[in-house]
Amino acid sequence: MTVRAGVVGVGMIGQDHIRRLTRVLSGVDVVAVSDVDTERAETVAAGLRGSRVFATGEELVAAEGVDAVVVCSWGETHEQYVLAALAAGKPVFCEKPLATTTEACRRILDAEAAVGRRLVQVGYMRRYDAAYRALREVVHSGDIGLPLLMHCTHRNPSVPGYYQKESAITDTAVHEIDLVRWLFDEEIAATRVLRPRRSRNGGELQDPLVLLLEMDSGLLVDVEISVNIRYGYDIRGEVVGENGTAALGEASPVRVRRAGLAADRVPADWRERFVRAYDVELQEWVDAVAGGGAFGPSSWDGYAAAAVSDAALAALRTGERVPVTLAAKPELYEK
Amino acid sequence: MTVRAGVVGVGMIGQDHIRRLTRVLSGVDVVAVSDVDTERAETVAAGLRGSRVFATGEELVAAEGVDAVVVCSWGETHEQYVLAALAAGKPVFCEKPLATTTEACRRILDAEAAVGRRLVQVGYMRRYDAAYRALREVVHSGDIGLPLLMHCTHRNPSVPGYYQKESAITDTAVHEIDLVRWLFDEEIAATRVLRPRRSRNGGELQDPLVLLLEMDSGLLVDVEISVNIRYGYDIRGEVVGENGTAALGEASPVRVRRAGLAADRVPADWRERFVRAYDVELQEWVDAVAGGGAFGPSSWDGYAAAAVSDAALAALRTGERVPVTLAAKPELYEK
Amino acid sequence: MTVRAGVVGVGMIGQDHIRRLTRVLSGVDVVAVSDVDTERAETVAAGLRGSRVFATGEELVAAEGVDAVVVCSWGETHEQYVLAALAAGKPVFCEKPLATTTEACRRILDAEAAVGRRLVQVGYMRRYDAAYRALREVVHSGDIGLPLLMHCTHRNPSVPGYYQKESAITDTAVHEIDLVRWLFDEEIAATRVLRPRRSRNGGELQDPLVLLLEMDSGLLVDVEISVNIRYGYDIRGEVVGENGTAALGEASPVRVRRAGLAADRVPADWRERFVRAYDVELQEWVDAVAGGGAFGPSSWDGYAAAAVSDAALAALRTGERVPVTLAAKPELYEK
Amino acid sequence: MTVRAGVVGVGMIGQDHIRRLTRVLSGVDVVAVSDVDTERAETVAAGLRGSRVFATGEELVAAEGVDAVVVCSWGETHEQYVLAALAAGKPVFCEKPLATTTEACRRILDAEAAVGRRLVQVGYMRRYDAAYRALREVVHSGDIGLPLLMHCTHRNPSVPGYYQKESAITDTAVHEIDLVRWLFDEEIAATRVLRPRRSRNGGELQDPLVLLLEMDSGLLVDVEISVNIRYGYDIRGEVVGENGTAALGEASPVRVRRAGLAADRVPADWRERFVRAYDVELQEWVDAVAGGGAFGPSSWDGYAAAAVSDAALAALRTGERVPVTLAAKPELYEK
Repeated sequence: MTVRAGVVGVGMIGQDHIRRLTRVLSGVDVVAVSDVDTERAETVAAGLRGSRVFATGEELVAAEGVDAVVVCSWGETHEQYVLAALAAGKPVFCEKPLATTTEACRRILDAEAAVGRRLVQVGYMRRYDAAYRALREVVHSGDIGLPLLMHCTHRNPSVPGYYQKESAITDTAVHEIDLVRWLFDEEIAATRVLRPRRSRNGGELQDPLVLLLEMDSGLLVDVEISVNIRYGYDIRGEVVGENGTAALGEASPVRVRRAGLAADRVPADWRERFVRAYDVELQEWVDAVAGGGAFGPSSWDGYAAAAVSDAALAALRTGERVPVTLAAKPELYEK
Repeated sequence: MTVRAGVVGVGMIGQDHIRRLTRVLSGVDVVAVSDVDTERAETVAAGLRGSRVFATGEELVAAEGVDAVVVCSWGETHEQYVLAALAAGKPVFCEKPLATTTEACRRILDAEAAVGRRLVQVGYMRRYDAAYRALREVVHSGDIGLPLLMHCTHRNPSVPGYYQKESAITDTAVHEIDLVRWLFDEEIAATRVLRPRRSRNGGELQDPLVLLLEMDSGLLVDVEISVNIRYGYDIRGEVVGENGTAALGEASPVRVRRAGLAADRVPADWRERFVRAYDVELQEWVDAVAGGGAFGPSSWDGYAAAAVSDAALAALRTGERVPVTLAAKPELYEK
Repeated sequence: MTVRAGVVGVGMIGQDHIRRLTRVLSGVDVVAVSDVDTERAETVAAGLRGSRVFATGEELVAAEGVDAVVVCSWGETHEQYVLAALAAGKPVFCEKPLATTTEACRRILDAEAAVGRRLVQVGYMRRYDAAYRALREVVHSGDIGLPLLMHCTHRNPSVPGYYQKESAITDTAVHEIDLVRWLFDEEIAATRVLRPRRSRNGGELQDPLVLLLEMDSGLLVDVEISVNIRYGYDIRGEVVGENGTAALGEASPVRVRRAGLAADRVPADWRERFVRAYDVELQEWVDAVAGGGAFGPSSWDGYAAAAVSDAALAALRTGERVPVTLAAKPELYEK
Repeated sequence: MTVRAGVVGVGMIGQDHIRRLTRVLSGVDVVAVSDVDTERAETVAAGLRGSRVFATGEELVAAEGVDAVVVCSWGETHEQYVLAALAAGKPVFCEKPLATTTEACRRILDAEAAVGRRLVQVGYMRRYDAAYRALREVVHSGDIGLPLLMHCTHRNPSVPGYYQKESAITDTAVHEIDLVRWLFDEEIAATRVLRPRRSRNGGELQDPLVLLLEMDSGLLVDVEISVNIRYGYDIRGEVVGENGTAALGEASPVRVRRAGLAADRVPADWRERFVRAYDVELQEWVDAVAGGGAFGPSSWDGYAAAAVSDAALAALRTGERVPVTLAAKPELYEK
């Protein structure tokens, strides 16, 4: 069975997912698109064989012949399209965030509970990265004992002009917020933000900052967020266990010896580092939709990330430790 | 356009390519299979939607509705199916070797010349590996000056029982033979084989051995072939230039500190190391068939590899330096 | 000129320094020893040519023919011997700590001020490690921009039975406390201690813990202290600047590929990691005593380390951020 | 006991050894110097306390009050001073080469045999390098099975004007020639030289070249010699065993991430790479002279290196495989 997918929102990320669905992955066609900018939707559809354009995302979701929906629209509109898909009983892949408020996430949880089965997957692609998967395997093998600490770095060479103070949490650290929940199979209990000396590359931003995440077990995660560090895109992580540690490897395709240095390459940006993770993420989703596997990150994961982000934003404002409070976890999301 | 591919030979590699074509890649369907073991062909076809089984490869090649052919049969039969595809004017992807004798390769060159356009691609997948592509880029950037030497290692943990003395050249070193021709854009002029102390893991084999390849420019390549080294599958290469060197990176997804060691993983086998290269190779071929790009390794590349292998086999037997003689290169294969 | 040194305290570290002074370094003889255990002093002296035994450290310090003093006695007694050396106007190398209380350190500062020239060096040997010196050079080169953050790890495979809760600060983290003051040429303004999930290897200890050090410039240092991590002795540090980072290299004498791994060695203990730093430290001190160079870590450094340790101990007890207050820095210690 | 050493030849290497003996090492004084340039000898002696100047090396060797001799003169004169030391029954450390011809080496062997005990040590300092010692330990542990192959690289950024065609063997590869004899405890049976494309940095030199060394067991060693490679001084070695490999680690004091690269430092020259090996070499020699240990590389090692170099020079001239013939090994040099 070929999955007939509709894409809501065909901006940069939407177009990239369409390229992936149509030119990289197997078992899926893009049969429908919509966008608030109808002209853009028309242009994108013109490049696809037989893809229909819908005036609204809701119409696309409801259309016969659309088996599943990929939501790539502006974050503020995610909730409405995800709720529409749930109402239609159709699987939906929603780019992060699931919704822009914790309350909106809860409405989605309620709607999915009403359906009674999982239909929503949120786009946390790091769970599909081969290195993170190998790291998780070591952590759960017991080889290093119980995990006690984790050190993460999340570095960007620069950020766009619309990047706000809060973006360090909601756009950047949110990846690690989801990641550690998945890596350790437990929730985050509290957060704190440390504010080092500021980089002159960062203007008004608190850049770098260190986000502390306390997990339910007491495991402590520190995350360095540096978003103007110029030299490249550098994602690292080391889990400290009782008897050893496990860290993401430093992969470089080529090592050049020249002018006094033996140098490895650092990725230029997230596309270079995580392109395969996006491919794997969507292929696994397509396969799950076609009936062959389990769904990935759930509405619950989207909700929990929102709740932790809220706490971290409060911690950024106040400088204090802020506990995270979560609703009871619906049975639907238990493994 | 979806390419309708037929697969001739559905043993291990054939089935793996079918999985790739149907479950990983985009823009291609497997619509036809054949195998000398008809029962096996029936079984494989049963797992595919609407794939037809043909009694012979020739019938499959000739069938209407088959746009392009993938040849994964026993090496001895490659020539006949490639010639059939050329006769039918259909693109053909032929797993290595192109043919088992240099003479057979020349017959294919002649047949393709008669068609007047390139239809054949040979399965040298290392050209599609990201690390080798990065290495090639550095070599051609001039950053390390002219290339003078290259050190390669090709290590297998073990080899199957049917692996013969000659296999070290024809099955193993043949990858490097193709690789350096592509990496440096020049032909191999002569070969020699060195015979170090033999491993007790290798039984009657000359294992390890060192293959020397002299390129037209005088550039010298040494290739260590160790096929029973137990610890893993380890492919390395370093190009020594006038002012520096460029080497394949040592990529490991995870680095574990435990019991006195900080350890990276070595791939277990060629599947783990080169799985992505196979995906990229076939996707680029599918895209080329569909009209979007240039073909990869040509019949000429298959012929040259066969000629160098012949010389290397003579060098293995005699212990002497053996020159390689190539026919004049048809214009069809000039860039 | 050969420096005639007397060693006060000939326990494990004292004997190791005697071995270093007599069998490794140049330009120095050990002519006198003392110890509270007179028998031990006699035994050690017997192994040296012409070394005298003194009943007390004070007598050794005062003796004619003793040019300089090395204090390796129990920490509680450091103050009295250092003051005695200052009273005698003789150079003194004092193993860390300079003294066990901040007040005692201040008494030493006053006594050295009264002498009017520097005579005291404290045994912070990391400043003499080649890797830390290379790191300092990069930091001060400006190549990575202003330093904003530093991540340190200080891991021990295990600790002896007498290791107390406070030892994580006073014995272990004290190395980083001195180090970052020297690395960045600024004082520590405040500290905080984070308490992750505890290792079952650590019994009653808070192990691991994370010590945060805020420098005067706002630069933030985090130090992971793990003292029962089994796998080895692992000291790492990475300085995060505005435009790049600089980290201690991972040096391993040999890399072994075996059984699926490519593994580097981790040092077994601090002796293996820092043996050369101790040699360089004492050779530079001997050369300085002989007239050829500047003294290393000063009484001021010993005092500052004590004041920061006090604050860190309070932070460990209370869980709160604790500011560090330092006296005005005497001119004697300005560069 | 302090060893009273005399140094014959106080050019660059002689002065460096004097600095080492007087300012770095323990248990040794330099009490005598000589040089064909008497003025230079006077100048050097003036910088030492109480060092006498001798008109000739022979007078220095014979002088009362000189316990042991360090020969750092021009290679052509090594034989005469070593023979003088043997005649005087005094220990002698002779910088490489032991002598400039195989015949001269044999005369030294005969003279030492006549004395009946070992007095000569030759300056092959790589045996004292910590990394090579760790490599030897792995090789002999059996962890990687029997050694079958070894790959070496010996790269210099540039060479001085007096460097001749033969120097690639006699000055450069001679280090590996000695090294592999020590590493594997066996002799070299034959050599061959491969001539890759030449670097334009190397003028008339065959640069790079590959020296092949066949050991008695059949173990094959390949040595890349590149002496104008600009980027740094790079010494590497990997032993390929039946079940794994062991390689020199890539040690860098600091790793800098900057401008798209994560870069380790390459040593600038042999001083930076091997300074500690020289220290250890001479300290162990001083300790052996003082009675505390075994001598290092022997006259036999000097002789064998000369015999292999002769064969390699013939191989360089002829392009052919050249067997090495050694005299019977005197019992004096058996372990």
